[in-house]
Order: sequence, then structure tokens, then C-alpha cells
Amino acid sequence: MHLIDLITRKRDGGRLTPAELRTFAAEYAVGRYPDYQVSALLMAIFFRGLDDDEGFALMEAMLASGGRLDFAGLGKPVVDKHSTGGVGDKVSIPLAPLVAACGVAVPMMSGRGLGHTGGTLDKLEAIPGFNTRLSLAEAKAQVERLGCALIGQTGEIAPADKKLYALRDATATVEAIPLIAASIMSKKLAEGLSGLVLDVKTGSGAFMPEMDRAITLARTMVGIGERCGCPTVALLTSMEHPLGVACGNALEIEESLEILRGGGPIDTRELTLALGAEMLVLAKVVPNLGEARVVLEARLADGSALEKFREIVTAQGGDPRVVDEPSDVLPRAPERAVVTAQRTGFVQQVAPRVIGRGIIALGGGRRTMEDAVDPSVGFHLLVRPGQHATRGQPLAAVFARDAAGIEAGKACIAEAIVIGDDECTPAALISHRVTRAGVEEL
Amino acid sequence: MHLIDLITRKRDGGRLTPAELRTFAAEYAVGRYPDYQVSALLMAIFFRGLDDDEGFALMEAMLASGGRLDFAGLGKPVVDKHSTGGVGDKVSIPLAPLVAACGVAVPMMSGRGLGHTGGTLDKLEAIPGFNTRLSLAEAKAQVERLGCALIGQTGEIAPADKKLYALRDATATVEAIPLIAASIMSKKLAEGLSGLVLDVKTGSGAFMPEMDRAITLARTMVGIGERCGCPTVALLTSMEHPLGVACGNALEIEESLEILRGGGPIDTRELTLALGAEMLVLAKVVPNLGEARVVLEARLADGSALEKFREIVTAQGGDPRVVDEPSDVLPRAPERAVVTAQRTGFVQQVAPRVIGRGIIALGGGRRTMEDAVDPSVGFHLLVRPGQHATRGQPLAAVFARDAAGIEAGKACIAEAIVIGDDECTPAALISHRVTRAGVEEL
Repeated sequence: MHLIDLITRKRDGGRLTPAELRTFAAEYAVGRYPDYQVSALLMAIFFRGLDDDEGFALMEAMLASGGRLDFAGLGKPVVDKHSTGGVGDKVSIPLAPLVAACGVAVPMMSGRGLGHTGGTLDKLEAIPGFNTRLSLAEAKAQVERLGCALIGQTGEIAPADKKLYALRDATATVEAIPLIAASIMSKKLAEGLSGLVLDVKTGSGAFMPEMDRAITLARTMVGIGERCGCPTVALLTSMEHPLGVACGNALEIEESLEILRGGGPIDTRELTLALGAEMLVLAKVVPNLGEARVVLEARLADGSALEKFREIVTAQGGDPRVVDEPSDVLPRAPERAVVTAQRTGFVQQVAPRVIGRGIIALGGGRRTMEDAVDPSVGFHLLVRPGQHATRGQPLAAVFARDAAGIEAGKACIAEAIVIGDDECTPAALISHRVTRAGVEEL
Repeated sequence: MHLIDLITRKRDGGRLTPAELRTFAAEYAVGRYPDYQVSALLMAIFFRGLDDDEGFALMEAMLASGGRLDFAGLGKPVVDKHSTGGVGDKVSIPLAPLVAACGVAVPMMSGRGLGHTGGTLDKLEAIPGFNTRLSLAEAKAQVERLGCALIGQTGEIAPADKKLYALRDATATVEAIPLIAASIMSKKLAEGLSGLVLDVKTGSGAFMPEMDRAITLARTMVGIGERCGCPTVALLTSMEHPLGVACGNALEIEESLEILRGGGPIDTRELTLALGAEMLVLAKVVPNLGEARVVLEARLADGSALEKFREIVTAQGGDPRVVDEPSDVLPRAPERAVVTAQRTGFVQQVAPRVIGRGIIALGGGRRTMEDAVDPSVGFHLLVRPGQHATRGQPLAAVFARDAAGIEAGKACIAEAIVIGDDECTPAALISHRVTRAGVEEL
């Protein structure tokens, strides 16, 4: 098979066969095609797309390039959640132990922060000693023992996707929907799941801000999951402003613990419960979303979700005192300052990309994968779009390493939080639900 | 400058600045950008195009990456012709000495055959001893002395284009009109020309078969030439069937000599005169195309064009006896056969791509740049589309190395030459003339 023929055909709007895509992914994973041809093919796919059969074949080929978890003998359902990423999105951290506390196995595999979005692994590593680098065998053993592991993508999973993703990142071909869908699903379906819930972000802080494209992505991923025999549900959720109050790695661990104690910001709590309810229904431990809510709230109220988190932290080498005394254990930024409203009015926006870039400016995020991250810095965002604010009222707290960081943080808040005269209605937290049956507006 | 920013902007339909394109070409020529990013940019350009300013900046940058000929002190006009390539197109070979015999300097720089089209260099090298690998300095000295040199593209000319062309060839991004135009013009404008004539082929045997795209290419190249102060004219000419009778390297040298003696097939002669007339007018040695014809025909009739060719062959190390006794000097295929018409009717087609592939099958063309070429093999095509043929009438002669070649050649002719019942009108040889003033239908 000559790759030039595939490039030419796709460039001219033709189809690639499943056999060709399988050969492509398998051979590329072992270095048999030059990157310069593959990047030309990726750009042609960016413009011409892949149909459902092509996307599925590519996903299958990337999945087949690596190892898989197998929970066949576990005797309980295995469900995971994936988010397309946003600012302040720490939901995986309370969600995984909460669902595990309901009797469902959760092999939660997450990523690192890059660009304006944070990453669950960076947040977990704010807990001193916490090790996210488990092998597939270690992760499997922990899921069997505790019902949950919180790990990174190992090199064993979908190496073809890993190589292809790095090339996409360097060639401006990340944003192609069929490539995103195949990439995400090749990793998630390697987890041996009996169900998958997708949190597809929309709005200005999302990687894919436009609602119609986000819905297409959700439908594509749901289609792939179902075709693989893995029941899949996607929720379209708003990233018009950061989720919750805390933005920054250690601060988000604190907020996650608040959720696990039954408190926390209303939006973080609501999204955790909504995604958790979908997971319980897919796991068939409850018959419907309403009953799922009841079970989830009970596990928060009785402390068993928090207890599950303690077990996971301990198992993965983290300091378990974080659960009860987070402020003693988590790294603390030495400098703090509060930013207050310069005028009275309605909060028009809390711009997530500005906040995300602000965290990078404070040293708490990554410009490149090699950057080190300071877990202590970040923001508490004390207002939401649509809310009324009075001059002098606190808008945000800045947590920084030094006085220069405080100034950078204040400038970020001044840019991100805009107060104006007009009343405004914030976007709904969850706008659509996508299942094999179609798209439901909520 | 980060190339990823340029890729993203072009992918999304934005413009690249002249400064960015200059940096790109200069840095790429010295290996500072990875091929995998450049190929993604090329594919984005394939889909989004380059506007006139972008294309001009890219051409200028590729031109600036190498050396140039300078004929400032020559005291006579310097004009060249470029063809986009076809089957049987040997026009450069009689044209260059003919125009030189009219007092115009012609630094004719040509290419090798690739794919279904032949290359002038391969044809010239059918003459024993003929050396096309002159340096720029040697070419300049010969042009100053004889008024003409027939050479290949040296590594000194537009190295950025050379590198980019190789990458385009491997990534299915050759066909983008602005890239073709910039590539051709960066090489031609390095010749220090006072005028340039372009032969842009259309029809099934052309690299760009569609008339509208060929006209766009012609307009783009004329625009670039004029913007560089080099008066440029393009003729759109038909490649619906091979040009002339001879197809194959040594056979085409023989036909070129017939033209220089004032004979030869009517279409080869007509195209040579039409392109030559444009060159003489651009060179301002005659006031109009009509007078140019008179001068050209006189130089054929008085033998001075043929004499000029003899001087060039001698100067470049070739055996000058080829001029008078071509059949004694040129390599001769040991096997010959005539293919006759199986039925009576009208010639519907003489498919140029089939003939081109047939020459490769006989060993006379290249699949890759590394392939060796047998100069002796090829075809004489004895009929033209639209012509009436009687059963048993010779359609073509095959010249081959062995009996297997004869069989391959016969099969090629059987596929290429189709005889049917319908009368048909062949395409006009020259359909449009493109100048700075616009497109003129002929």
C-alpha cells in the first residue's frame, strides 16, 4: 500500500477502506510511513473528513495497536467518564470514588493539562506522594481490589494514537472531529468498559466552542462506542465560564474534597451528580437517573465516597491526611490577594480562556508538555455570569508565589471578569444529552 | 516565527504575509522546518490557495534562495519558453536554435521526464555525448558565445523550490495552482530573461487537463512574470493527443531535426512557429507576430536554425553528425513492428496518457527519478483524432528492445488508438492566448 495513493484519494474527496486504515495505523505505529506523508493525509482528512465507517476503522486500528484492560472476571460493571476538557473541571476526582462507592468499577484514565485547560493528573499530583503512573497490570489489580484507580494513559494503550496525536499537535490537525473522536475512543475502549459517559464541553472555554460541532463530536463518539458494544452517553455541558470556584491544582483538590463531603459549589456538585447518574444507569445498578441521584447523594452523605477516595489516595502512595486536613497537606501559595469589584452591576463574563492563561502565567499550567507545574497557585472565582455585584465586593482571590504573581493574577481577573449594566442569563450547565437514540435538548 | 501558526492560519482560510513566506522559504531551504509541518502547510495551501500577493512572495523567496543568470552586458534580448509538459512535446529542441538563429539569446533550461510525460533533457541525451549538466557559469558563457544553451536545472537555481517540489511530489500537493506557478516562475525568472513564453497544456494528456484550471495557471504565471518586469505570454495548447508523430527520446530528436530542416509533422511545426513568434515579439526583434513568422520561416529555409543546432550540439559534447545523419548516430531499437487498423472508421482518440505509459513499459520513460531510460524505444503515431482510417491501414510503428516490448507496444496502441463510426472534430492546437491584457480566445 502506497500512502501517496491514500493521500490523493482523500484529498480528492474519496473514501479510504477499513483495510487501508488498519494498515495505515499499524504500519505508522511501527514507523513505516514518514511523518511528512502522514501529516499531509491528516490535513486532507481535516478538510475532507472521515465518514462513520472510516472513523470507526481508524479507531479500531489504533485500539488494536496496544494493550487493553480485561475485567471479564470481575463480576461487576466497569464504567468510565471522559471530558473534552475545560477550566476548573475537577469532576473526575470526586466522581470516580463516588461511583466506585456505589459498587461500580471505575478505571479512570486521565490526561495532563495543556494550553488553557487543566489536567486531572496534575491536580492529583498536588497530593504529596500521589502516583498516577501505574502500569495496566497495577491499575487492573487496584480496580479489582478497590473498585477504582486514577491513572494516566500508559504507553501500553493505543500507541498509534499517541504517535498520531503528537503529529496532529505539531501540524494544526488536532481539531478534525473524526480524528478527535477516534483518538478519544481508542483510549477509552481499551479500558474494557461496560459503559462510558462523555462530558463534551461547549462555549468559549472549550476546545470546540461551537455547539453544532460539539454535538457532531458527541454523536460521532456515541456512535463509535455503541458500535463497539459499549453503551455510551454524552452530555453537552457549558464551558462559558470556569466550573466551580477553584482553579489551580491544589485548590481544585480542596474543592473536590468539599464535593465528596456533600458540599462544594453548586455547579461542580450538579455536574458530578449528573455524570455519576448516567454512569450508574449504564452500569445497570439502578433503573433510572432519578434513582441514581438518590444513591449518589446517599454515598456522599454517609461518607463512603470520601472513604473510597482515602483508600485510593493511600493505595497510590499519596498522603491520606489530605482527606481530613487538606490545608495542612496540600502545597500553599505564600502570597494571597483579593480582587474587588471596581463598579456595581451585573457580571457579564468570567472568561475561562483568560483564567486558564492566568494560571499558566502564575506557573500553574503548561505551555509545553515539558513544563513543570506549581500546584499551589491559582484562583478562587467568587462570582458567576448573571450575578449582581456591588462595588467593593470580592470577585476573586489570587494565590501566587510572589508579588509579581499577585500582580499578574490581578491583571488576569481584571480582564476575565467583566461587570456591566445589562442583566444577563448564564448558559445552562447541561444543554443536551446524546444517546444512541439521538440528541435530546435539556 | 512558528510554522504551526502559519499552518493554522492558512488552514482556517487566512493570509500569510510576504515576510512570513520569505522566512518560510529561506529557512526551509536550509532545513530549519521539519518536513511534516511543511507538508501540512502545503496541503492547507492545496485546499485554501494562495492569493496573488502570497504566490508572488513565495516565488520571490524561492528565486532568492539560489543563484541567477545575469545577461545585462549581453547587448541582445534574452527570451525562454516553458511548457507544462506532455507526450511527444519536443518543441524546445527545434525552437531554441531557431529563435537563437534570429538573434535572440535563449538560455533554455529544461527538465527530465517523469510519469507519462517525456523530458527535453532525456531527449537531448539520446544524442551520444550530449552534456546537459552545465553549471550556470558555463551556460552563461555558451549563451554569450552561441546565443543558446540547452541545459538542466542546476542545483544553483532555486534550491528552495527543488526541496519543496520533492516534498510536494511525495505528499500529493503538486497540483495546487499557486504552488505550480511559483515553482515554474522561480526557476524561469532566475534565467535573467527579458521575455518568457509559456506553453500551458490542456486536455487529457496534460498534468492539468481542465481548461479553466489551465487558464487560471496561465494567468497566475503571466501575472508573476509581469510583476517581476519580465513580459510574459502564455499559449493554451491541446494535449488531447500526442504532439507530432514521434514519441520516444531518439525518435523525437529525429522529428526535431525534420522541423529544423523546414519539414516535420504539421502540428509540431505549427506549435514551434507559434511559440517562436511570441518569443521574437517579446524580444522586440520584430514588431508583430506576422513578421515574426516570416523571419522564423526564413531561418528554417536558409538552414541557419539547423546550423545553430549543430553548433550547440558540438559545444555541449554531442556528436554533430546527428544533424546530417541522425539514423547513423542515434540509438536504434532492434525490433520494429507496424500496427494496422482492425476496422474502418474515424479515429476517435489517440490517448496521450496511454502512449506515455506505453513508453515507460518499453523502457523509454521513468517511474521514479532513479530509473534509467532507453533512448531508442517508442512509437511513430501515424493517425490523428478526426482522421478517417481504413481497415489494414498502418496506425503506428512500435520501436522496442525485444519481442516482449513489441507485444507491450502493440497492446498500448490497441488501447490508445480508438476507431469508431462517428465523425469527430479534433481540438484546436492553440485555443487561448493569455497576456497581461487578459485572456484571448483564438
